[in-house]
Parts: sequence; structure tokens; C-alpha cells
Amino acid sequence: MTGTEQLSVAIVGGSGYAGGEFLRLALGHPHLNVTQVTSERSAGQPVALIHPNLRGRTNLKFRKAAELEEADILVLALPHGSAAKRLAEFEGKARVIVDLSADFRLKDAELYRQYYGEDHPAPDRLGEWVYGNPELHREELRGATRIACAGCFATSVILPLYPLLKLGVLLPKDIIATGLVGSSAAGASPTEASHHPERAGSLRVYKPVGHRHTAEAQQELPGRFPLHLTAISTPRVRGILTTVQAWIPDGYSDRDVWGAYREVYGAEPFIRIVKVARGIHRYPDPMLLDGTNYCDLGFEMDMDTGRVVLMSAIDNLGKGTAGHALQCLNIAHGWPETAGLEFAGLHPA
Amino acid sequence: MTGTEQLSVAIVGGSGYAGGEFLRLALGHPHLNVTQVTSERSAGQPVALIHPNLRGRTNLKFRKAAELEEADILVLALPHGSAAKRLAEFEGKARVIVDLSADFRLKDAELYRQYYGEDHPAPDRLGEWVYGNPELHREELRGATRIACAGCFATSVILPLYPLLKLGVLLPKDIIATGLVGSSAAGASPTEASHHPERAGSLRVYKPVGHRHTAEAQQELPGRFPLHLTAISTPRVRGILTTVQAWIPDGYSDRDVWGAYREVYGAEPFIRIVKVARGIHRYPDPMLLDGTNYCDLGFEMDMDTGRVVLMSAIDNLGKGTAGHALQCLNIAHGWPETAGLEFAGLHPA
Amino acid sequence: MTGTEQLSVAIVGGSGYAGGEFLRLALGHPHLNVTQVTSERSAGQPVALIHPNLRGRTNLKFRKAAELEEADILVLALPHGSAAKRLAEFEGKARVIVDLSADFRLKDAELYRQYYGEDHPAPDRLGEWVYGNPELHREELRGATRIACAGCFATSVILPLYPLLKLGVLLPKDIIATGLVGSSAAGASPTEASHHPERAGSLRVYKPVGHRHTAEAQQELPGRFPLHLTAISTPRVRGILTTVQAWIPDGYSDRDVWGAYREVYGAEPFIRIVKVARGIHRYPDPMLLDGTNYCDLGFEMDMDTGRVVLMSAIDNLGKGTAGHALQCLNIAHGWPETAGLEFAGLHPA
Amino acid sequence: MTGTEQLSVAIVGGSGYAGGEFLRLALGHPHLNVTQVTSERSAGQPVALIHPNLRGRTNLKFRKAAELEEADILVLALPHGSAAKRLAEFEGKARVIVDLSADFRLKDAELYRQYYGEDHPAPDRLGEWVYGNPELHREELRGATRIACAGCFATSVILPLYPLLKLGVLLPKDIIATGLVGSSAAGASPTEASHHPERAGSLRVYKPVGHRHTAEAQQELPGRFPLHLTAISTPRVRGILTTVQAWIPDGYSDRDVWGAYREVYGAEPFIRIVKVARGIHRYPDPMLLDGTNYCDLGFEMDMDTGRVVLMSAIDNLGKGTAGHALQCLNIAHGWPETAGLEFAGLHPA
Repeated sequence: MTGTEQLSVAIVGGSGYAGGEFLRLALGHPHLNVTQVTSERSAGQPVALIHPNLRGRTNLKFRKAAELEEADILVLALPHGSAAKRLAEFEGKARVIVDLSADFRLKDAELYRQYYGEDHPAPDRLGEWVYGNPELHREELRGATRIACAGCFATSVILPLYPLLKLGVLLPKDIIATGLVGSSAAGASPTEASHHPERAGSLRVYKPVGHRHTAEAQQELPGRFPLHLTAISTPRVRGILTTVQAWIPDGYSDRDVWGAYREVYGAEPFIRIVKVARGIHRYPDPMLLDGTNYCDLGFEMDMDTGRVVLMSAIDNLGKGTAGHALQCLNIAHGWPETAGLEFAGLHPA
Repeated sequence: MTGTEQLSVAIVGGSGYAGGEFLRLALGHPHLNVTQVTSERSAGQPVALIHPNLRGRTNLKFRKAAELEEADILVLALPHGSAAKRLAEFEGKARVIVDLSADFRLKDAELYRQYYGEDHPAPDRLGEWVYGNPELHREELRGATRIACAGCFATSVILPLYPLLKLGVLLPKDIIATGLVGSSAAGASPTEASHHPERAGSLRVYKPVGHRHTAEAQQELPGRFPLHLTAISTPRVRGILTTVQAWIPDGYSDRDVWGAYREVYGAEPFIRIVKVARGIHRYPDPMLLDGTNYCDLGFEMDMDTGRVVLMSAIDNLGKGTAGHALQCLNIAHGWPETAGLEFAGLHPA
Repeated sequence: MTGTEQLSVAIVGGSGYAGGEFLRLALGHPHLNVTQVTSERSAGQPVALIHPNLRGRTNLKFRKAAELEEADILVLALPHGSAAKRLAEFEGKARVIVDLSADFRLKDAELYRQYYGEDHPAPDRLGEWVYGNPELHREELRGATRIACAGCFATSVILPLYPLLKLGVLLPKDIIATGLVGSSAAGASPTEASHHPERAGSLRVYKPVGHRHTAEAQQELPGRFPLHLTAISTPRVRGILTTVQAWIPDGYSDRDVWGAYREVYGAEPFIRIVKVARGIHRYPDPMLLDGTNYCDLGFEMDMDTGRVVLMSAIDNLGKGTAGHALQCLNIAHGWPETAGLEFAGLHPA
Repeated sequence: MTGTEQLSVAIVGGSGYAGGEFLRLALGHPHLNVTQVTSERSAGQPVALIHPNLRGRTNLKFRKAAELEEADILVLALPHGSAAKRLAEFEGKARVIVDLSADFRLKDAELYRQYYGEDHPAPDRLGEWVYGNPELHREELRGATRIACAGCFATSVILPLYPLLKLGVLLPKDIIATGLVGSSAAGASPTEASHHPERAGSLRVYKPVGHRHTAEAQQELPGRFPLHLTAISTPRVRGILTTVQAWIPDGYSDRDVWGAYREVYGAEPFIRIVKVARGIHRYPDPMLLDGTNYCDLGFEMDMDTGRVVLMSAIDNLGKGTAGHALQCLNIAHGWPETAGLEFAGLHPA
């Protein structure tokens, strides 16, 4: 690449929240030129009609996927199952494909069947995709042309656990992750559950057991241990706060947790360890991360019991989806890893 | 009536928010016995499935309107137009009918056509209905068998203005009412506009001009003056806060406003004048009124310009709809006016 | 007691949220007559100035505690430590004392010292108080004159676990409870942490380990097992949603959980089992409980791992504090247990 | 200036929200180098402790104002009155001073006394300051060294009215502006009014008459007409939505309003006219503007009455304060006007 490289990008399924967020980020990226955005339902309309934050920022109009022309990069923001079923169609259009859905995240077609309830449409292709998480797969991402962007809740579970499991700082006991998730994670289509009067004041346990991202997290995390996920929706629009309950071995202390995070994430541009003794913002809080690509991590220990509470906060549309995807693309193309991802977040917010 | 009188009530269209709120109130009323609740879509299901606050409070199930049996009182909570078109059907079922829709509020069929865009289905029947506002029509409500419950925004405009216009405390100049309205006022059906991620943080001007309740307010308020309404949706679920900008004649002061309110509303059980010099709750605030039948009124004057800012707060489903309707029924039947409407509201809330 | 019994009640520390909520409930109680409310800071002012929901409901004014006169019942809503230190003062004023603080909840003075960081001011008196939880201590509460109202988070942990531990439906493994708590639980005094711009959008882990209510829950729950609590503040004002992660033995299923709840709570007036297969309100949700005395319980099982996720929802000021206290008083005096606690909660809310 | 010019900037009073927002923007500005941030209360602490969104973005620590060293630009984010009283102190430190307070906005010391209740500390200096509003004073801002940044509510009133009054599209009748304001506008210090349980659900009329920004708006807007302001606080943290009720002369239509906006604001980089016939985002909405420097304008007409409802939306900390100030600095120094102000805002948000 050179400092002036410009690649064209087409966003397929651009009227949803993940596609819209990627569009926002790509419009401010020095090496990307968004040339096409598709939406079956809104074809012909300006993208700013659906994403009104982009008024004055782009004159792009939605087109139908059938009208898709070639581009350097294709970003697929489609419902689960679509990317795998229409893979040939998309591979004819671009050299690089980033899929934001769950279709190519799992390496094991059987696991896919178990969690998604149907046979994988392209099981022999699963091995070609890199799991889109820079902290775990940076080297594989360099030059990658097939990137399966990590799931948002999965990311909030994987990032706090990875260094500790990798370096043996946790016991192989039951690990429990509880995710508090904003409403945008359920997508842009209105439902009874998303109707404002039913949702605005709600704390709704929507997936107490059996969350699909368990499979991703188990695949990506080192070692064998029981991992349990519970997901609760909150009145926030964006953001995930995940608390992870785990146990450290005798003789270990919070210094070992600190050490593991520093060793593994010390050079990471989007991981911050938040554990402050003063003030009111002592631990990770998604309030501070809307629009950013950060994953803030924190922890606290109960020395009497060996319990450690890990905490992670992300923007589900940022580090949870579109920001994460752009970070992967930056790595794949050798661009500065933070390009297009500079927004610091707001305070107050 | 006697102290033990029990009348049966059927709620038609009981899966919406207005019907559900009337159901909640009626279940706690000493003289009402809810025997039927209809819903075309949820027929056969327990009402508590749709109104989960009523779990353990009632075993009623929804039935279809076609299965409606006779009752003493029919409460119609249907979309605008339905009550008027199906009037004969409903009149065969009960002696007393309360309509929560706009169908019989206006006395003038031409005004109806102008604001609702079609000919009134039963224009010759308009004169038979009492406009369901106890503060203005208490005497007509006694013994009434046809009650057209006042509109929620209209109520929040009428109640602060009525005493001042009646007693000549306002100039016949332009009066401007700005209503901040909760999301429940748009009903129980999900739409793109009510999708939580689009609505939770929104301050959305949804009816800057041409609000239909202008007609009701003009009909009910004494005198001739230009009345202008603007409606804005807020992140609250319930509640309307309306500020009314008006002008008082030279020589008048806030004492005259106080006096008018005291004279006209001094004995009203559900009107409170809120104008406090200390503390943080100095004016009406819908936060305090969820679930209640109060209309809180306040005001402030600018002596330099003669401008007076009137303020009203209600729960749109309480004093704005279902509570108001129950208060009318209490009057119609000679029951204590506050029966079933005793809830004080919460603080904090 | 007789149907017309009227006891006088004085609320000490009535300008806070717990005292205010008890006042609201007591004003609507058929056998209670609130005669005094104290507040050092607001002495001389109408209680409705601080609790504006009570405008028009009471003309009571705050007085100083030093001016307290005798009453039948004293409800102490003071900061932790005050009740124990001033016990003699209060015992001279009333036959029945209900303490809403933590002072007399623990039976073990050593445990108190460990969790509250100081010696208990009246350790020899601990045995005289009944732990104010009707579901566990109904018989002891009959005729009780010293009631130590249970903690709000503790209640949300104890109620879902008690039947299962009592009947041996859980393994003696680590149990983890994660509580999502509204801002009113931190009291009525402004702090930096409660400043609206810092709190409105926040999901803040405020007590990942070491929560004081661990001690209460351990004391009240049968059996020996490690209990771990994590508390997170949410943007709600009222309400606690607690998820409890526990494990059932081989051969047990959700039928056993159902069975235990039915056996132990089948006749409880304020416990509802919420586990619905249809609709959007499938599990307990504090949204529906503001102002009520309900504790809604639900659960879901992961048959592959034996994990069971228990869920409880309460209003922290209702079943969590003031409602719970009133239920205890009803039992203590032989009044109907639901007297004054009839509010059903709102939907939508 | 050259493309690589770097000026040092010191923020005085940087622990508040306005100072913090300016700091966030300045850290991303190509020509600004923040070298000092003062805070009396937090001196010695990292700025990221108070503004946690800036973790990892800056290592700056607060210092006391007494330790202030010279800089090219001083941004004063102090309480009203401080800048004027300590002007000599600040003028010794920098060539360029931007004041975010109200001290130097009014040209008329008598008007200041009337609205701020005390004599102006430096009345002879008022004429030296440019009112910091680029749309009205761009030419004066070029090369300016004393900039008094416009008030946030004033800006939301001035921008929708200015073109219409300048071009005679409005009648000289009473104009009424109603502002819905987020909680951050009241600053970073906790009060009873800002306590989350009291504010989260509140719609609070906090300034029905007599708002100080009336003076600014009257000063800046052409023509003589009565201007009336009412301010209401909403549950949002950021943002102002202002509706302005005004009247157009006979023979004028919405084309004239469009025309005036196009003529006066056609080249403005931060003004967008939002008036869309389709979709759910038809008018300005502060939800879309958090963190941006936009002022979105819209309007709707009632042809029967000649009433026009103007609408404006801003982020009170963006275009309302810190963004506005930076835009002024960009103009003053001949930098690209959008430098550092590129953030598009989020959707959903």
C-alpha cells in the first residue's frame, strides 16, 4: 500500500445498524471510498434517509443487491445464513470480503448446526475465513481476504478471558458471563419486544441459557472449561457491559491478572485497562464508548474465595461489529490500525 | 345506587394501552365487575399475557368482539372511526357506553370531517354524547349513558386554560400550547418510529401544526381566540407536560390567575395547583403522575410583557384517558368521584 | 385487632426514599394513622415539599426527632448505625419498632463487625429482632414488636434460592448472584456518582465483590455453600433484577424447581412465578413492579450442564424495603397481609 | 498560517463539561496543542480521571490556575463573572482569549446588570469582544483575539430566526421559543435537582420566563419584536431542541422560509435544513447530534393562520459551547472551518 491508496468498498445490507455504522466509519477513512450501499427495501432512496446522521456527509443512494457492481472490498451486513448461501454471488464481486454475520465464524460445521439449527450452507469453506478479532488473530489477518467478524457478545466475553486463560491465571472451573446489552443489538426492525413503551424501562433476561455466542467463545478461548452465558437487555441503545465470574488458583493475586493483561494486551491500541481507585468511573462502562472501537477491561478480586470478577465494556456496533471489522481491514491492508477509528467517545454522554 | 351496587363492564379493544389501563383501574373499583375483555388478535389468551402487571389479579381471557355478551357498561377502546361505525352493534349490548376514541367528541360533523379527513359515520348521533371532562361537564355527566372521553393532549390544553378564559383573565390573543408527550400515546402497535433505538434518545416534533385535538380544545374553551398546538414526543413512556403561552390584560397579575383557578377548581378532587417557591419540584411534572388521575397545574408570569406561562401535567393514560373515563363513570352513577382512582403516584419514579 | 383498629405510626427519618415510600403506603392503610414524620434537615416543612407525590394527600409537616412523641409504632428509616446507637431513645416512644436499616438484621455481632467495619452498638439486643421477611419468618412475625426489615438486594437473592436450598434442589456449589439495581437504592442525597449526566447512561459495576448483603443472605439461607454477589447500577430509578447462577443435581429437572416454588410459595400473596412461553414478558422484569410489593420469580435451565438461572425482580423501595416492612407489620398485627399493598403496578411503565 | 502551524492552548476551568468537551475536540485538532488544563479542585490529578473518555488519549494533569504559564490561546471555561473579574490575569498569559461564559457576550453593560443582577466588572472592555457565532459574525472573527462564545440556548434561538428576520420573512409579532434542554447544560456539580432519581424521569420547567439568554438573542437578532423564552429540562444528557413559534406575513409561504435559509446559510458548513417528507426523522432531533457541531434547522407552516414553527437542534456542549468556540478559533486563525469538528454523530444513539 501507499499513503494515497484508495480502495472501493461496497456495503451489502446497508440499511441496518451494523451496515450503517460501517458506512459512517468508512466515510471518514483515509483509504476507503464507499461506492455502493445496498438495501432491498430502501433501494433508490438516499442512505441519509435511513441513517440521518449522515445528512450532508454522503449523497449515496441505496441500490438493490442485484445491481451490485465490482468493488475492492465487500462488507456483508446481512441476516445470518445469507452470506454463506450467496457466497458465490459475492465472491464474483470483490477480492476481499468481510462478513459481519455469524456464517463463517465457527470452524466446525457440526457446532454451527447445533447452535444455528440447520446445516451450514458451505461447510467446506469454513477453513478459509479468519475469525475477525485482531487481538487474537492479528498475524492471520495480515493480507486476509476472508474475514468473519466476531460476534459482539462473544467479543465482550473473549477479550477479558483470553490473556488469563492463555497464561494459566484461571482455574478450569465454571466461568459465568453475564452480558447487559443495548437495544441496537437486536437490529433495526421493529418488533413487539422493541416497542418503546415495552422496552424503555425494561431489564429483560432474553437469553438466560443457550446463547449462540457460547460456541464462538469456546472456539477462541484456550483450554477446556465450562463457559456459561446469560444475556439481559437494558434500556441503553448501544453498548455491552459483561461481568465474568471466574476463579484464580491459590497463590495467585490481582498482580497476576494485571500482569497477564499487560503482557498480552500491552501494545493493543483499543484495549484499555480500567481499574481506578478514585472518582466515580472506576470500572469499564459502555456509557463512555458509544461510537468508539475501545474494549475497556477491568477486574476485582475477592481474596477470601479466589473469585475474580472480570468486566468488559464495548459498543456493540463499534468494537462489537463495525469498528472491529474496520480494524481487521486496516490490518489486512497494512494501514495504520487506528485509521478511521479515532473517535474518543463522549463525556458526559 | 347503594353501597354494594355492582355493575358489569365489558372492555372492547382491551389489548391496547388505554383498554389495559381501564382494566387495571376497574379491577380495583368497588362498584365495577369486569366480565369481558375483547381483542381480535389475542382472543383466547389470558389478559395478563398482554398486560403482565395483572398477573395474579385476574383470570380473564380475551374474547372476540363477535362473542360479546350483554353488560351494564361498555368501554370502547378502539381505533378512531370504529365506535361510530359499529354503534348499533354496541348499543345492543349495554345501557351505558363510554367511548375512548375521538368519534363522538366533536359536536360539529363538519369539524370532524375537516380534522379526521372523512365524513362522520353517524353525524345525527353526535348530540347525544357528553364530552367526557368532569371539570367542565360534571352536571351533564350525572346519569349520562353516552360519554365521549376527552382526548389526552386536549385535556392538557383545556384544563389550564378553561378557568382563565371563563373568567376573562386572558387577552383574546394567539395562545400557543406545546405538548411533550410520552410514547404510550401512540398506542401499543410497534412502528419504525416506536422502535426503541430510534425513540429512546429522541426529542421528535411529530405534529408541529394541525394537531387534531385543536378542534376539541376550541370546542370546549369559552371565547374566540387563535389556538395553536405543537406536539413533541419525549423519551418518557407515559405523561404529557404542556406549556401554554398566553397573555393577560393590563392590570391583571398572578393573583388573578390564582383566583381563577381557586374559584373554578377549588373543589376539584383531581386538580392540584403546583407553584412552589422552594425545593426542586416547583411546577407540574408528569414524572410524579404515572398511574394517577391528577392534572397538576402551574403558572408563572412575566410582568414586563404580560405573558403568562401555564403548565399542565397528566398521565396520558390516566387523566388523559382511562382515569378520566372512570371519573366520568363515577359521576354518571353517583359513586364517590375518586373511587378506584386513589393511587397517589410514586416518588422517586 | 378489630376491623376498625387504628394504630398511630411515626416515621423517623422520613425525608429519604424508604421513609417516603413507607409514608405513601401507610397513608392508604386501613389500620395505620401516620401522626409524625421526622427529618432533621426539613423540620418545619410540609412532607409534600420533599415527597411531591403526596401533595393533597397529607398536611403533615416534618419535625425534629427530638420532638418525637409517643406512638404505637415507630418506623426507623435512618442511616445504618443510628437505630442501634439510639435504641433506648426509640424504645421509650413506642411498643413496636420496625427498623429499615441493617442494624438488627444479623444475629452475629462478629459478622456485623466484619461487614460493617465497626463493633455493633448493641450486640446483646440482636436476638430480640425478627428478620423482616414474611416468606421465611411469618410465624415469628406474628405479634413481633422488633422487626429488622430485610435488605433489598438480600431479598432479591434470598427469595429465589430459599425453596431450592430448603428442599435440596441445588448442589452445594458456588452460587453467583448478579443484581442490577436502580439509582434510588443509593438514597436521596446527591453525590457525584448520582449526578444525572454521569448516571443516566451508565452501567456501573459498583460492588463487584464484598457486598454487605452477602452476610444476610448467608444467614437466612439453609445449608452451606459459597455465595457470591455482584452489584451493578442501571439507569432505572427503582427496581432490582437479580440473576442467580446455580447448579442442580443429576436427575433433577425444571419440574423440581417448579415443584419447590409451588410447595414453599404456593400460598404467598406477593410471590409470582413468571415463566411464560409466549409473548415478550417471559421472565421477571422490575419495569412492571414499581410501587408494588411483588417479588416475581422465574428460572431457566440448561439441561446439558445442570446450570439453572434463577431470576427475581422487585421494587427496591417496595418488596425491597417499605412494602416488605408493611407486610411484616400486617402480619405482626393480624391484619390482612395485603392491606395497603394492593397496587398492581403499571403497564406500560 | 501554514499547514503545519501548531498553537498551544490552555484550558482554564477544565474539569467542567464545557472545558472537557473543548479538550476532547482540541486533542484531535491538527493545529492545536493542549499544553495546560486547570482545575482548582482536581489539581494534580490526571484529566482522564475526570473525563474518562480521554483515557489513553492524553497524559495531561490538572494544575491550579495560579500555575498557569503562557500559551498562544486561552480558553476560559469558568463560572459566569470570573472571566471579567480576572481579565488582567488572563490577558497576561495569551494573545488570544476565548471565553465560554456569559461575561462578554452583551455589548450593553446595563443589559448585563439587568439579567445577571450585578454591575459588569469590566464594562469598558465589552466592545473589544466578538460575539462568538460564525454564522452572524464570520468576518469579525477573522483575526479576532477576544471571542465571547455564544450561549447554548441563545444559539438555538438565534440560528433559526436570523435569516427570517434579516430578510423580513416574519411579522414583528410575539415570538415564542421553547427549549428542551439536556442535563449537562446545568454543569458538572451535583445538586438536588440533578440527583438521578429526581431527574431521570422528569420533564421540569426550570425557566418559564426571564431566561438570561433572551438578552443575547435580542442583541443579535435584527429588528424589534417581543421575544419570549421558556426552558424545560428533559431526561437527555446532551442536546437542545428548540421550537420557535412565529408568524409570516400574508402572501408568504414556506418557499420564502426555504429561500431565506438557503440564501443566508447555503454555504454554512454546520447548518443543515432538515425537513423530510418521508421516514421517521423528518425534523431536527438532538438525538443525532451528540458530539457534533451541527445545528439542524427545520420548520413547518400552518397556512390557515400564518403560524410557522421553526425547529432547531444542537448539542449544547458542541454547537452550543465547545464546538462553536472551536469553529470560531478556526475562523480566527484561517484554518479550515471544520478542522477538529468532523464527527458525524451516531445513529442509532
